[in-house]
Amino acid sequence: MSQLRKDPVVDRWVIIAAERGHRPSDFKAEPARRDEASCPLCAGCESRTPPEIWALRADGSAPNGPGWEVRVVPNKFPALAIEGALERRGVGMYDMMNGIGAHEVIIETPDHYQDIPDSDEPHVAKVLTAYRERILDLRRDTRFRYVLVFRNRGEVAGASLSHPHSQLIALTITPSLVKQKLESGRRYYREKERCIFCDIIGQELDTQERVVFESPDFVVVSPFAARFPFELAIYPKRHSHDFCLMSQQEIGSLARTLKQVLGRLREALGNPPYNYVLHTSPNSLPRAGRPDYWGTLALDFHWHLEIYPRLTRMAGFEWGTGFYINPVAPEEAASMLKSEPAAVAAEVH
Amino acid sequence: MSQLRKDPVVDRWVIIAAERGHRPSDFKAEPARRDEASCPLCAGCESRTPPEIWALRADGSAPNGPGWEVRVVPNKFPALAIEGALERRGVGMYDMMNGIGAHEVIIETPDHYQDIPDSDEPHVAKVLTAYRERILDLRRDTRFRYVLVFRNRGEVAGASLSHPHSQLIALTITPSLVKQKLESGRRYYREKERCIFCDIIGQELDTQERVVFESPDFVVVSPFAARFPFELAIYPKRHSHDFCLMSQQEIGSLARTLKQVLGRLREALGNPPYNYVLHTSPNSLPRAGRPDYWGTLALDFHWHLEIYPRLTRMAGFEWGTGFYINPVAPEEAASMLKSEPAAVAAEVH
Repeated sequence: MSQLRKDPVVDRWVIIAAERGHRPSDFKAEPARRDEASCPLCAGCESRTPPEIWALRADGSAPNGPGWEVRVVPNKFPALAIEGALERRGVGMYDMMNGIGAHEVIIETPDHYQDIPDSDEPHVAKVLTAYRERILDLRRDTRFRYVLVFRNRGEVAGASLSHPHSQLIALTITPSLVKQKLESGRRYYREKERCIFCDIIGQELDTQERVVFESPDFVVVSPFAARFPFELAIYPKRHSHDFCLMSQQEIGSLARTLKQVLGRLREALGNPPYNYVLHTSPNSLPRAGRPDYWGTLALDFHWHLEIYPRLTRMAGFEWGTGFYINPVAPEEAASMLKSEPAAVAAEVH
Repeated sequence: MSQLRKDPVVDRWVIIAAERGHRPSDFKAEPARRDEASCPLCAGCESRTPPEIWALRADGSAPNGPGWEVRVVPNKFPALAIEGALERRGVGMYDMMNGIGAHEVIIETPDHYQDIPDSDEPHVAKVLTAYRERILDLRRDTRFRYVLVFRNRGEVAGASLSHPHSQLIALTITPSLVKQKLESGRRYYREKERCIFCDIIGQELDTQERVVFESPDFVVVSPFAARFPFELAIYPKRHSHDFCLMSQQEIGSLARTLKQVLGRLREALGNPPYNYVLHTSPNSLPRAGRPDYWGTLALDFHWHLEIYPRLTRMAGFEWGTGFYINPVAPEEAASMLKSEPAAVAAEVH
């Protein structure tokens, strides 16, 4: 079983994976690109994944066969194990626990070549619904504190399969960057009785300098202090701490926004690799006294989705410093992405 | 001029570079590999760099011509400008200042193919001496709070030139990860009247599980909660907050350690790309009342050097979470690196 270990100097938990017995040569080559002809995520290959956890099957077809629109399966090579106890323990001055958690793959479409910008909005809404349903289900497990949804697109961004998919990791800890944001949101609210994210959204809408896309429900900006070229954040305009509280109408609106923005990135930057990450409130069980307990609800948080195109190779020493150099001003990135790409525009209008 | 901008939610400054007018196509391709035949850092090409700031010239030769052993020049494409005032200002709820700082290149050798493991120890000591001399010089500029020394090796690690070199950036802020470590060190010292790093070193030397190399003055470990496969940290055994306070003998000892460890990484992992970063105390000018003032001396810090091989492509969503999955246990990495590679061993003994 893998382990969760905490760095004693900076407040950061790391998964140390369980596999052992690597040879040095395992690390010499880049990972091989898998053959698309044998993709295990395609329709008709359902038996090549672990049995499905959740699926949207409009035709009422049986599990683990064709007929699905969106399908969720356990990761075949999970970083964490779902079964077991945490067994928190100290090792001298260090802290650790067992690598308990869930690691799932959200297969977004049966079609290998249908990326989000190629899908219609109702289909993208189904992917977002899968996120919500899996988060809600995993929140019922009291061992988990945070459910992390993310998407790696392109080999450079860490995707080992090119079939469109997202991932989800349920964690027994809250990731440090999310925790910092939660703390900052709470501090700001206590001081001003306002949400820091609502204030940011208000200022961005006023100046419009960094706004890439706006709909009645959502706004997409390239953040004022973006760390990466073309970094983007999608915020709901209505204050809400929890992604899972979106109405069906809002999910449809987010689907339109996501399709728009990923389409513009693809057109403007030539199908760049990217990661996106959902930041939402942590699991809100009434467990006061836990070190990262946020009240029954972290109401002062404001959920959002962050997108990081992987365009430069400059992000290496940043790991050792927390310090970033962004060669593209966010205002410039926003102005490049402001207009709809021709292909998307033609389809939308 | 570039700008320093602060993220209002997480306490993080970012350099937003000054260049404007990118076309989207600028980001579509990987950066071109430069031709080694026309390397501007090689001996005989001194006129192709900005005029030198510092050089070690044993033969007493004139500046900006051949005869040097280690040479420091301004970066030709600096991220920060050395001239100007900070002009701290608010933009609505955001904070920013001018991109003032120094950005220098430490050319480690006149020979394009002489990497640190190929150099003799006295030569490596000269490189380390260059680090020290430049840090000490830049500390006299009261605008600067931190001098960051780092080395990118290999194109994947962000090195645009393959000639062995390090870089240095003098900053008007303390990088966030360094700040976290300083705060943590101070907190631990206040509570226990001991240095947290000395305690870590003590435990590592006791168990030996993660020790890669040890000399009378230094110890190299793969940290307990390493974020990356084969991540390493070099600690001085003697408590010292400041890299610049090493004796000449200790510099020689660090040179031996660095050459050993980089040689072992090269042998074991097939010349991997990597970054290393020096974490030392910030500039210690008596300026109480500044937000990141650490007293006249951050005596409770313990300087160290961190090395991050760039072996996996899994580090993408980590930017959005602060959460890492390391597929190689540090104990396993340490055991693979424990033995001396044949080539290095033959030379040393």
